[in-house]
Amino acid sequence: MDVLLLPPILGGIGLLAAFILYRIVKGYSSGEGAVAEIAASIHDGAMVFMRREYTILGAFAGLITILLFIGFDTWHTPAAFVAGAVCSAFAGYIGMYAATQANVRTTVAANTEGAASALSVAFYGGSIMGLTVAAMGLLGLGSLYYLFGAEHAEAIHGFGMGASTVALFSRVGGGIFTKSADVGADLVGKIEAGIPEDDPRNPGVIADNVGDNVGDVAGMGSDIFESYCGSMIATIAIGATLSAATVATLSSDGRESLMFAPLALASTGMICSILGILLVRMFSSKKPDVALRMGTIGSTILFIGAAGLLLNSIGVSSAVWLCVMCGAVGGIVIGLVTEYYTGGRPVELIAEGGETGPATVMIAGLATGMESVVIPVLTIAGIIFATSALLPEGAGVYGVGIAAVGMLSTVGITMAIDAYGPVADNAGGIAEMAGLGEETRAITDGLDEVGNTTAAIGKGFAIGAAGLAALAIIAAYIETVSHHVEGFILDISDPLVLTGMFLGGIFPFLVSAMTMRAVGDAAFDMIKEIRRQFKEIPGLMEGTAKPDSGRCVDIATQAALRKMVAPGVLAIASPVVVGFLIGPAALGGMLAGAVVSCVLLALMMANAGGAWDNAKKYVEKGNLGGKGSDTHAAVVVGDTVGDPFKDTSGPAMNILINVMAIVSLVIAPLLG
Amino acid sequence: MDVLLLPPILGGIGLLAAFILYRIVKGYSSGEGAVAEIAASIHDGAMVFMRREYTILGAFAGLITILLFIGFDTWHTPAAFVAGAVCSAFAGYIGMYAATQANVRTTVAANTEGAASALSVAFYGGSIMGLTVAAMGLLGLGSLYYLFGAEHAEAIHGFGMGASTVALFSRVGGGIFTKSADVGADLVGKIEAGIPEDDPRNPGVIADNVGDNVGDVAGMGSDIFESYCGSMIATIAIGATLSAATVATLSSDGRESLMFAPLALASTGMICSILGILLVRMFSSKKPDVALRMGTIGSTILFIGAAGLLLNSIGVSSAVWLCVMCGAVGGIVIGLVTEYYTGGRPVELIAEGGETGPATVMIAGLATGMESVVIPVLTIAGIIFATSALLPEGAGVYGVGIAAVGMLSTVGITMAIDAYGPVADNAGGIAEMAGLGEETRAITDGLDEVGNTTAAIGKGFAIGAAGLAALAIIAAYIETVSHHVEGFILDISDPLVLTGMFLGGIFPFLVSAMTMRAVGDAAFDMIKEIRRQFKEIPGLMEGTAKPDSGRCVDIATQAALRKMVAPGVLAIASPVVVGFLIGPAALGGMLAGAVVSCVLLALMMANAGGAWDNAKKYVEKGNLGGKGSDTHAAVVVGDTVGDPFKDTSGPAMNILINVMAIVSLVIAPLLG
Repeated sequence: MDVLLLPPILGGIGLLAAFILYRIVKGYSSGEGAVAEIAASIHDGAMVFMRREYTILGAFAGLITILLFIGFDTWHTPAAFVAGAVCSAFAGYIGMYAATQANVRTTVAANTEGAASALSVAFYGGSIMGLTVAAMGLLGLGSLYYLFGAEHAEAIHGFGMGASTVALFSRVGGGIFTKSADVGADLVGKIEAGIPEDDPRNPGVIADNVGDNVGDVAGMGSDIFESYCGSMIATIAIGATLSAATVATLSSDGRESLMFAPLALASTGMICSILGILLVRMFSSKKPDVALRMGTIGSTILFIGAAGLLLNSIGVSSAVWLCVMCGAVGGIVIGLVTEYYTGGRPVELIAEGGETGPATVMIAGLATGMESVVIPVLTIAGIIFATSALLPEGAGVYGVGIAAVGMLSTVGITMAIDAYGPVADNAGGIAEMAGLGEETRAITDGLDEVGNTTAAIGKGFAIGAAGLAALAIIAAYIETVSHHVEGFILDISDPLVLTGMFLGGIFPFLVSAMTMRAVGDAAFDMIKEIRRQFKEIPGLMEGTAKPDSGRCVDIATQAALRKMVAPGVLAIASPVVVGFLIGPAALGGMLAGAVVSCVLLALMMANAGGAWDNAKKYVEKGNLGGKGSDTHAAVVVGDTVGDPFKDTSGPAMNILINVMAIVSLVIAPLLG
Repeated sequence: MDVLLLPPILGGIGLLAAFILYRIVKGYSSGEGAVAEIAASIHDGAMVFMRREYTILGAFAGLITILLFIGFDTWHTPAAFVAGAVCSAFAGYIGMYAATQANVRTTVAANTEGAASALSVAFYGGSIMGLTVAAMGLLGLGSLYYLFGAEHAEAIHGFGMGASTVALFSRVGGGIFTKSADVGADLVGKIEAGIPEDDPRNPGVIADNVGDNVGDVAGMGSDIFESYCGSMIATIAIGATLSAATVATLSSDGRESLMFAPLALASTGMICSILGILLVRMFSSKKPDVALRMGTIGSTILFIGAAGLLLNSIGVSSAVWLCVMCGAVGGIVIGLVTEYYTGGRPVELIAEGGETGPATVMIAGLATGMESVVIPVLTIAGIIFATSALLPEGAGVYGVGIAAVGMLSTVGITMAIDAYGPVADNAGGIAEMAGLGEETRAITDGLDEVGNTTAAIGKGFAIGAAGLAALAIIAAYIETVSHHVEGFILDISDPLVLTGMFLGGIFPFLVSAMTMRAVGDAAFDMIKEIRRQFKEIPGLMEGTAKPDSGRCVDIATQAALRKMVAPGVLAIASPVVVGFLIGPAALGGMLAGAVVSCVLLALMMANAGGAWDNAKKYVEKGNLGGKGSDTHAAVVVGDTVGDPFKDTSGPAMNILINVMAIVSLVIAPLLG
């Protein structure tokens, strides 16, 4: 059998595994009465949003496809673009569909069967997402690689561009949706009306729960999908441009094995992820955080071992294996640092700042976010340095690509654990809204708490992975341009490169500002609507009348769809404009400026947001006066500011840089 | 007469003009009774802090001098370092001394003579600072250039390093002092005790007013001084390394005129600044903002005209003159954008956000800060692009240096207007503390309001200038290394350069976090002390007993001196460590990453802080419920967070990048 068929076959196996998990989840009871009704509202709201989002996305993708047809002589690049967009959209859709089935079943399991069962359902729900993301990547990219062959290798870049385009809109749209609903519901519900989170009387609560799915499941899935594919595509591209001498030192089987290595590693990672999911199942009677950690670390160790055997079998030097290890270990280091900053001593310090009011909470949180960038960025710098030291001169950037692939190969399990968070969060929301007992709430709260930490870790990991993937894509861009432009060098002392670097630094700040404002504006509309309902619907506050949740879902949907367009167009158009108007050197500088600025801002926002969130939870557990105290009011302010930081603007950064990089890579052959 | 003697002579003239202004200021009455007593406390507090700060600084500078003696074969570099440090310290000291004489005289003039007199005194107080900064630069650097000649031209870099070292400590130390006092006094005074700002019963108020002088006058003076000298030094260095062919296209009088051009331009700027100060005097009966604007714009126009004649007379091409114009106009553009974001519609939007609580104020302010980077950074990118297009190939970076010099040449007047702000602020504080009448307060409030806007503009200008100066220094670093290392190129696709870029991106975030935390911690100590005094000193709240202001000044002093060391050592040591351990390519990458990251963060923090400050003032004027409303409480939170942003961490960024760049330039010859 042709070894090139293995990635798509493993993609098929991954999809099958996801389907089996889906059947298992469906086997659990979905409850009845209020529980089922609430779950249906969340599911329907999410599906309506996805359909409307994909309609806009489809039109936009269609336009780009036409432009690509005009720009390129062959049909390969536009076809790859469509394939990437479809695979990404499919992965996001399936993942979210499954998550909105798993949430209510987790609630029911917590209510009737206990903690272990609830953990299993929630985790399976997340795992469907994780496996689908990895499977679609292998299936789509693996098939294209098999079909296009060496002749149209550059056209594969289109797949990454398709994936990134969908990811950008999903992440930004989903992020705006989820946080406008969350902030709006919290500000009126908790602060003005004085009712608890997820109270069924609050008209914004359904929208908030829908948001968890469209933002944290579908958005996150597309985000990781594009990093996953981007890192492979970039490594293949760099492999294709290595000099013959370098190839000889890295592989006894020639260039093909170096180009195939990323797909082979990801295929191995898929198997290890499935084994990791089984590990979590084995340990499901332990505490949730122990079980989940066993899964991640177990599958990473398995993967590192298997990768060594695999690379050896396809004749690739053990130096490349060390690069894989750099990436895999680096991912864990970044995750652990994130865990510290969003769960350790810094969180307590932020909460203690609350004793002197919201201003000190803000200052402490921002300082924590800023400080938290240090070790992750040192890790990224260390990976670049180490891989370049491990590989022979001239092959350094291949090592960066391989490290990115190494970090992302076990995406099946890391995404599973990440997507578990919003499922558990939703399960708690449903339990609260349906008025289930204390005991059920205690179980779902326990699951949710772990989910918050895993979500923060997942975000740190996603940023690190996206940063490395972007670096690899940028390196591939430089190589590609060099092939078309004689003597092309990105010299920092070249004023054009410098101009580009400053231009690139702007985008992350501008897109963050746009998305934060979008959340602020939409939340404001949401607040007005919730206030109106409390005023105009008689009996709502007393619980005798029902809120009009649909209106709130609609407001969030409208805002998300309207405001996601500008950042998306900006990200996609800017490399084209700069590349054609000022030239490939300025574009290269722009990517360099953007990647540094994006990674820093993304880490700062994600970790500050996570730390504020957990500082609030720390106080709500009864520390420093507990709920209702002035300290609590102060940390709630921190959490509210952290919401768009960690779930809208921060995550948008990962994709922003990858979109800019991949669009540049796609147009690179035209910039000659 | 030797034309090279002109800069030091003009420096002498500038000092003389400053001395004349000082005599004029001293001619005004310094009041008596409570007014004089309060002013004396502020003056003494500031002087004690400066002495203690300079003691630590002296020890530190001594250590560096010894290291430079060991590292370099000649005594020229360490001698230049000492000269730079002494000139910077002298400029800061004189400026602050004068400001603490002018503040009380402004109060008395407002009380007895009216608005026009008060404006004159406050502005003269600031002008002494502005002229001293420019004069010390011309005197110090001009003398060294004359004495060292072409043979030891590289040793002049030591002057910049001395200036930057002093600036870093002054800015960081002063910034921590001023904001820990401000935040501490505000949080207890305004929020807990419910007494107005600058109320004499508040034990932290004297410290707050001392802080304005050590932070906004002395710190700002050293900051601009180092950009001013840095831009000239870098341009001289670039001029020295231009190829003979490039020199021929740029100057009919040879290389010497290109190297001398920055000093000549700055000398011209000194004359124009003195004329600008006279312009403000002429218009002092107009509204303060009109008078100040006439001075800035008038002297810029004069300067652009004079620069054209000057460059023509020393045989320099008119293309270089266009570069001067790019810089001068760019500075005004950045100032105007800053004015918009810290005074226009965005400020009202932030205040309106206060209607839904402090969280929305925070989100809107952060979004404003992020958005505000766009046009200034586009301006910087535009200047780089335009100057490289104006000059022949290979001379592009010379144009960037000249643009920086062009922006900074009229520093005498821009600094005068900037330092006017804290003098007016202090004048208001003294009036309030001494219980002077409504009318006096109205005049000082009017002056203060204009001062807030000019301070914000000054900050934007300082960041733009520092960014350009840093770029020029980095370019000079690359040129210098190229002279010592064959075939040296800063190629972005070189993994070492990339490693450096990420490393460089870290520093701004780390230093911001350190300084924000320092303010937070010191403010916390301050709050505890103020609370203690309110509790333990009988009759304090009733106004029958006096607070122990000295304790508060001491707390701020201790905190500032203790916490300024780590960021300073980090900034100075990191280029040395990276340069010698990983090499000049990684160091070059680090500077590139740091400059982009510093400029972005500095603009964001300065403008967000300025916008929050003015949103608070907007509400305090009676809008949206005015003082005492919930909206007011919300915008006060924004202002408190903005304080360390705009006056501690943000300004530290300018110097951080310049210190890193100039240290790199100094050690460049040793990295071969």
